Amino acid sequence: MIAEAISPEILELIEAKNWNVLKELLPTLESADIAELINRIPLPEDRVFVFRLLPKDTAADSFSEMTAELQEDLVAQLTNAQIKQVLTNLDPDDRTHFFEEMPPAVTRRLLDLLSVQDRKETLELLGYPEHSVGRLMTPDYVAVKKEWSIAQALDHIRKIGKAVENFDTVYVIDNRWKLLDSINLRDIVLAQETDTVDSVMDDNFISLSAFDDQEKAVYYLDHYGAALLPVVDSAGILLGSVTFDDVFDVAREETTEDIHKSASVAPLETSYPRTGIFELYAKRIVWLVVLVFVNTLSGAAIAGFETLIQQVTALVFFLPLIIGSSGNAGSQAATLIVRAMAMHEVEAKNWWRLVLKDLAVSCFLGLTMGAAVSVLGILRGGYMMGLAVALSMISVVVIGSLLGTIIPFFLRLLRIDPATASSPLITSISDILGVLIFFSISSLIIGT
Amino acid sequence: MIAEAISPEILELIEAKNWNVLKELLPTLESADIAELINRIPLPEDRVFVFRLLPKDTAADSFSEMTAELQEDLVAQLTNAQIKQVLTNLDPDDRTHFFEEMPPAVTRRLLDLLSVQDRKETLELLGYPEHSVGRLMTPDYVAVKKEWSIAQALDHIRKIGKAVENFDTVYVIDNRWKLLDSINLRDIVLAQETDTVDSVMDDNFISLSAFDDQEKAVYYLDHYGAALLPVVDSAGILLGSVTFDDVFDVAREETTEDIHKSASVAPLETSYPRTGIFELYAKRIVWLVVLVFVNTLSGAAIAGFETLIQQVTALVFFLPLIIGSSGNAGSQAATLIVRAMAMHEVEAKNWWRLVLKDLAVSCFLGLTMGAAVSVLGILRGGYMMGLAVALSMISVVVIGSLLGTIIPFFLRLLRIDPATASSPLITSISDILGVLIFFSISSLIIGT
Repeated sequence: MIAEAISPEILELIEAKNWNVLKELLPTLESADIAELINRIPLPEDRVFVFRLLPKDTAADSFSEMTAELQEDLVAQLTNAQIKQVLTNLDPDDRTHFFEEMPPAVTRRLLDLLSVQDRKETLELLGYPEHSVGRLMTPDYVAVKKEWSIAQALDHIRKIGKAVENFDTVYVIDNRWKLLDSINLRDIVLAQETDTVDSVMDDNFISLSAFDDQEKAVYYLDHYGAALLPVVDSAGILLGSVTFDDVFDVAREETTEDIHKSASVAPLETSYPRTGIFELYAKRIVWLVVLVFVNTLSGAAIAGFETLIQQVTALVFFLPLIIGSSGNAGSQAATLIVRAMAMHEVEAKNWWRLVLKDLAVSCFLGLTMGAAVSVLGILRGGYMMGLAVALSMISVVVIGSLLGTIIPFFLRLLRIDPATASSPLITSISDILGVLIFFSISSLIIGT
Repeated sequence: MIAEAISPEILELIEAKNWNVLKELLPTLESADIAELINRIPLPEDRVFVFRLLPKDTAADSFSEMTAELQEDLVAQLTNAQIKQVLTNLDPDDRTHFFEEMPPAVTRRLLDLLSVQDRKETLELLGYPEHSVGRLMTPDYVAVKKEWSIAQALDHIRKIGKAVENFDTVYVIDNRWKLLDSINLRDIVLAQETDTVDSVMDDNFISLSAFDDQEKAVYYLDHYGAALLPVVDSAGILLGSVTFDDVFDVAREETTEDIHKSASVAPLETSYPRTGIFELYAKRIVWLVVLVFVNTLSGAAIAGFETLIQQVTALVFFLPLIIGSSGNAGSQAATLIVRAMAMHEVEAKNWWRLVLKDLAVSCFLGLTMGAAVSVLGILRGGYMMGLAVALSMISVVVIGSLLGTIIPFFLRLLRIDPATASSPLITSISDILGVLIFFSISSLIIGT
């Protein structure tokens, strides 16, 4: 299912070291597929060999599509002159991304290989905080003046366009480089050559600050469907541009982090199949141990009812049902709220409305499930047991679900990522309450 | 945090029914913000009123940004003539999306309002299966011939471009309308007017079939970073084009569904805050009840050890720790695998490698956690209790984690969405095994 363009034949050509045929074939592939292909070559020497068969531009494009591990791997085996060529041909934002991923010692050595201009550009971009739009932007863009004619604008575009990654959107600036508008290249092409740039402007544009969180770029891309967004400083001066493909990558990475957090896994640095055993251990153990201690409280709650359990051992049969349902209802509620928050669908001031709605939903859920387990209760221990089990089920489902809804709001209030309200955490917390509620109700109704 | 462009002032203008000022102001907003604004107006009459203040094109653009509920709401209040105007100005793919969301009776009535041509286009798009690329594509695109000069191509673009949603990418076709290449408008602009289209072609393009799953469009967008993708039939004839913003929406919706499934919630039709109480109940109850029956098996397992529990009631103290940890390790493993599968990072034939890796990771996790709880065991019940608790912890963590890794592969083999291996399901299944393992080991070591 990955990169269908990579046929087994190509891998056979590599195994057979048929470099001449490969040299003809490789430039006909998409750079993303070349990156994937090189990634799949088993021998590191072969990887470098195939990489060096690529024409200059293709090499740089494919390099920017590779994982950080593969990049580091290749860099370790290329000569300084070869690395310099690749780095020089990379787009500035891809170069920044590459430097961010390398260990600091490697970064220092590699920065020395760049020209003064390229080094300056990279260091400038690296000056913005991690996860800021500044790290994502490219300083390459096409800007025109509002008083120019369309013909003048097109001349300018033809002059500088070749060196620019993407100019499907062109920016309009004044003499101080202040951003006035962003217009589609399409509209320039459709306009009369004698018209002015002014005539295709609608003075209505969206821009990002270089210090904005990359999440804002994701939100804008989603909300406005813009393929290219201009980046400005606090005075509105145009600094650069972010493209939808980089933003899309950020969106995917952020979502993956949120999903991992939802299962109490700390964010991984790279994809799961590429993460090493000890890193995975480290990313998983912390929360597992924390949760053991939370679960100790459930154990302690149970221990408090030892006499009751000895009298009515049958109660223990219902324990997994009751506390499991509480945790499941809580996971559902937390997952719904956390995702809605990530999608900007939830406003903080409306929290009580969602809590009320969850209260209504969970009452119906609790009643249904209480009715279902009451039958089991009656069959196993008579009517009083049925009553105790049903009442407990209703209470724990409602309380578990409310916990799942409220905790994410509470975390956000404390400026902690709401995704921390993971299913395992919510489950463990509802377990404690579930134990207390179940045994308290049971001891009232059937305890002696 | 939503749509900062909507200031409280605008909402005040609406409340004051200051339509004249609003009529001037509204066209200066982005259509996504107008949709959001109308969404926030409390009175339905006011919503229609504000919508009717919009210029024709802005009205259609804003309409396409609205939620299905709001669209249905507006349609119910507009006259046929007004609806016709909106529908006619919608882009074909947005129109299809709108018709898909409406109840069939409404669809039939509205289709009658369209011109023969527009109706034909909509019905054609609706002929493709749900979740297919055909439903997502627009039949609007710009296509040129390879033998044309750049000047000819630009003339053609200027002639038909105005009616096309997006032509940042232009397609090259032959006389039979077969797709030969896709090229950037940028490259056409940069080329000499006397060159031929042929000279900017690289004969290297990515295309989708109209019957492909929309997921493939998401994968291509991510993998190739293409803002526009051509759609062809089985003979390679160009049918239409999909744009990144529509694909981005699909990606977000799919991810939300996966996330909801991960917590055993059936996919919602719309956003969580907009879903009604009874729909939420329906989306949550099915799995909750299924899981109650799975949990009954844990209960039955516990009941099988009633004599042991009566002898050593202290064991119940450790029950939530042991089964909780098993479920948590399982949730972690399942979430990592399911997300990696959704990101196309996992190949089916490599499943055993990931299982072996998980085995290694979970052994280390189990050992750490076994060591931690052995202390608790010794403190509460002596050395033998410590041993029993530690051995149980190691076993349940390894088995829970392996279950979490294997079940998603198993589901994929059965062509069931791996996301069905939700945290609650994995937790409930590991609970059963956790109970059996813990009480079996304990009865061997400390049972009498």
